[in-house]
Amino acid sequence: MSAEFDLIRSLQRAARPDSRTPLGIGDDAAVLNLAGRPVVCCDLIAEGTHFPAETPPDLVGRKALAVNLSDCAAMAATPTAAFVGLLVDRRRGFAYAEAIMGGLTELAEQFDVTLAGGDTATHDGPTSVCVTVVGTCEREVRRTGARPGDALLVTGSLGGSLPSGRHLTFPPRVAEAQALVAAANLHAMIDLSDGLLADCGRLCEASGVSAELTAEAIPVAEGAAGLRAALTDGEDFELLFAVAETDAVRLLADPPVDCGLTRVGRIGAGAGVTVRDATGEPLSFRTAGYEHQFAS
Amino acid sequence: MSAEFDLIRSLQRAARPDSRTPLGIGDDAAVLNLAGRPVVCCDLIAEGTHFPAETPPDLVGRKALAVNLSDCAAMAATPTAAFVGLLVDRRRGFAYAEAIMGGLTELAEQFDVTLAGGDTATHDGPTSVCVTVVGTCEREVRRTGARPGDALLVTGSLGGSLPSGRHLTFPPRVAEAQALVAAANLHAMIDLSDGLLADCGRLCEASGVSAELTAEAIPVAEGAAGLRAALTDGEDFELLFAVAETDAVRLLADPPVDCGLTRVGRIGAGAGVTVRDATGEPLSFRTAGYEHQFAS
Repeated sequence: MSAEFDLIRSLQRAARPDSRTPLGIGDDAAVLNLAGRPVVCCDLIAEGTHFPAETPPDLVGRKALAVNLSDCAAMAATPTAAFVGLLVDRRRGFAYAEAIMGGLTELAEQFDVTLAGGDTATHDGPTSVCVTVVGTCEREVRRTGARPGDALLVTGSLGGSLPSGRHLTFPPRVAEAQALVAAANLHAMIDLSDGLLADCGRLCEASGVSAELTAEAIPVAEGAAGLRAALTDGEDFELLFAVAETDAVRLLADPPVDCGLTRVGRIGAGAGVTVRDATGEPLSFRTAGYEHQFAS
Repeated sequence: MSAEFDLIRSLQRAARPDSRTPLGIGDDAAVLNLAGRPVVCCDLIAEGTHFPAETPPDLVGRKALAVNLSDCAAMAATPTAAFVGLLVDRRRGFAYAEAIMGGLTELAEQFDVTLAGGDTATHDGPTSVCVTVVGTCEREVRRTGARPGDALLVTGSLGGSLPSGRHLTFPPRVAEAQALVAAANLHAMIDLSDGLLADCGRLCEASGVSAELTAEAIPVAEGAAGLRAALTDGEDFELLFAVAETDAVRLLADPPVDCGLTRVGRIGAGAGVTVRDATGEPLSFRTAGYEHQFAS
């Protein structure tokens, strides 16, 4: 048996049939039993672009799934099944590919996500992992529902994710999102992949509103290079959400999550994101976030 | 705006909200309205491995979706929504990436599949496209139901798909599968991606049966290099299925499909696939099919 077929077999072993995927892996497609309305997200990570070549392969697999679980969290969805498109640098060898699947499977088990299918191949080029997660939600939280007067809250702390390695080990805020929707009416939510400033801008654009962030309120992660890092580093994978002011007061008085919850600003009319210092003066930051470029 | 964000915008333009994807693209995940039990498949194709570098990009995009539609067909499922993980060689430029999405979108429209989400990035390496398709089925046709005494039928003709370029332009047999399940009780089905011999072997292994193929009955495609090509070339993306003998007679007398329908053999007890010539003598072929190898 060749390497590709061994990989599929190792995928099959990791993915035993359960009530959610009664066929297991090994047919032309997976049949899913879902407990609610399907929510689907799809993210890819590539060596040299989203992770350095020296990244331990188990953390590569972990991250490929984790970014998708974070997307599910941002919708307040419960992830159910994962599909993995794994393209491995031929020179890496079989153990490397298996370690990627191992890290992915371990996180899947932690989040009770079933590995339900996918595709594997080797090639002469960087390794990449494209994961699609199918989940369910009762009522999804979109990016579009923020209203002027809402408070903006964020989970955890921000900045320095790449230098600290947290971009490989961050805990997707799936349970936290569930606890938050159970506790309050979240108007809009997004996960922070490209930095607070850029992703807050996206939430505002989708909702047709503006936001004012309060510089000294922003929770800067330990080891992060200050406010700028917290605003623009990216890959925090924390949740940013908008709730009515009364709900914000209630959530902050008795947080339903253990990861920290901070009020970072408020929603206004108009468009755009402003960061103000303690005196109310607007600060200027390049809206960065990580963007991939063509050479030409 | 950077190239990556432009790509996402071009994806958003291609993917307008409809009743099946009420949010369209642009939130953290897609919410789907499905008309039945979810069926999900995920296949990736990479430059240099599944398509040569000189392949026109619209055909790259087309193929990336088509192989998944073929998987849906093999389950007798109706494809509904596609998710695209597109990793583009940075040196190719934006027009190349857009042409991939164009070819993919055109085929999606032909099959009434909505482009519902995905992820795009550029990198220094070969282009690859990982597509996940979510569909529905009333009753899926698995690989596992073939029984001794069943007839084995195949759609279309086989062999020479790579040299003829048909591996880029083949029509996924989605409607044909629907017509076949409406006309007969299909016991087991698989799409032919790795060649009749290898894929028939997979169907037999899954069903716990053997198969005898009749050499002179196998429909060799025009331009294919004879019987060996029809058995082992791969990338035909035709359907192989097992039905009761009485159903086979009925289907062949009045085929519910226009693409051709041929009886190629029968299912027996035991294991393995044998090809016999007109005199009943077994012929020997290496069970090939295309397999990707690690260098080490």
